[in-house]
Amino acid sequence: MRVGILLFDGVEELDAVGVYEVLAKAKQLHPQLDLTVRMRALKEDVSGALGLKMLAHEVKRDLSDLDLLIVPGGPGTKAVAADNEMMRSILEFGTEKPVASVCTGALVLKEAGLLAGRRATTNRAAIEELRSTAEVVLERVVEDGTITTAAGVTASIDLGLHLLRKHFGPELAREVAERIELPGYEKA
Amino acid sequence: MRVGILLFDGVEELDAVGVYEVLAKAKQLHPQLDLTVRMRALKEDVSGALGLKMLAHEVKRDLSDLDLLIVPGGPGTKAVAADNEMMRSILEFGTEKPVASVCTGALVLKEAGLLAGRRATTNRAAIEELRSTAEVVLERVVEDGTITTAAGVTASIDLGLHLLRKHFGPELAREVAERIELPGYEKA
Repeated sequence: MRVGILLFDGVEELDAVGVYEVLAKAKQLHPQLDLTVRMRALKEDVSGALGLKMLAHEVKRDLSDLDLLIVPGGPGTKAVAADNEMMRSILEFGTEKPVASVCTGALVLKEAGLLAGRRATTNRAAIEELRSTAEVVLERVVEDGTITTAAGVTASIDLGLHLLRKHFGPELAREVAERIELPGYEKA
Repeated sequence: MRVGILLFDGVEELDAVGVYEVLAKAKQLHPQLDLTVRMRALKEDVSGALGLKMLAHEVKRDLSDLDLLIVPGGPGTKAVAADNEMMRSILEFGTEKPVASVCTGALVLKEAGLLAGRRATTNRAAIEELRSTAEVVLERVVEDGTITTAAGVTASIDLGLHLLRKHFGPELAREVAERIELPGYEKA
C-alpha cells in the first residue's frame, strides 16, 4: 500500500506530519507491513504555513503509482485548488482509488469534485464553505465510501489511526497510539 | 523571546513539529507577540527517525542567542548525547536559561547534567533510564525550576501549550488549542 501525502507551500505543518508520524511509526514497528508513506510535491522544498521547511520524498505530478492520496490543509490549499491540472489528477485518482484529507484539505477534494453529496468534515472554520457541497458531519474522522475526511490539524493523528485500523486492524492502531502516547486512546 | 527547537538526524518527527505548530501558531495569530520559533541544527538538512526530511532555519552550534532551548526526542538523541561539545553547550545554556525537552530529549538533558535530583518525565519506554538521575513524575508536562520536560511524542503539543500559558497566559494557550482542534482542551 503506497501512501502519498501531498506537500505544498502553505501546508499546515501538523496536518501533514501528524498522519505521517502515525503511518510511518506503524511501518517502523513492523517493517514487514505492506505500507510505504512518502511526502509528495510538485517541487522538492516546501515551506509550511508556519514557516517549517520540509523536503518532499517524491517530486512529480502524476499520482497513478499511489494507492492512497492524503491531502493536508492550510492556507496553501487555495493555490492547490486553483491548479486545474492538479484538480483533474485528483478527481481522476479519487474516482478509482481512496483519497483522504485533513482540515481544509477537504476544500481541495471539494474543488476537485469528489465531495458532492458526500458526508465529510473539515476544519471548524471551513464548515460553511464545505456545507455548500457536502453533508457536513462534526466528527474527528468521517468516512464515506472511498473518501475519508478529518477535522482540523490535530485530527491528522486520528486520521492516521483510522487508516491503520481500517487497513491493518485495530491492534496495530492501538499499538501506535500507545507508542506516541496519545491521551485517552487506551479507552478506545 | 527567541525559541530554538533542536533538529538532528533521527529526531522523532512529531516531537519537533508538535511544539513548533503550537508556538508558531500563536505567533501567526498574534504577529505582535514577542516570540520567534526556529528550527536549529548543526547542519541544514535533517532526516527524522521516520524518514521525514526537514531543513533547519538556523545552522549553528552556539546557543547563546536563544532564550529557550527545546530538545525533542527520538533515536538520534544518542548521538546528540555523545557530542561532548554539545553537552557542554546545553549545560552552560541550561544553567542560565530555560530548557525544555520532549520524549527522550530528556535523556539529552540528563547527559548534559541538567536533571540531577530534578522532577522530570520522558517517553514511557525511557522512564527507567531517567530514574537513575531524576525524580520521575508520570505527567504530560513536568516543570522543575527552569527545566521543563514532556512525555512521549504527542506530549510535544502539551509542552507547547504549557509554554504559551506560562509565558503569555492561559487565554492564548486556549485560543491555539481551539485552533488546532485539540480534543478536550476546552475543559482545561
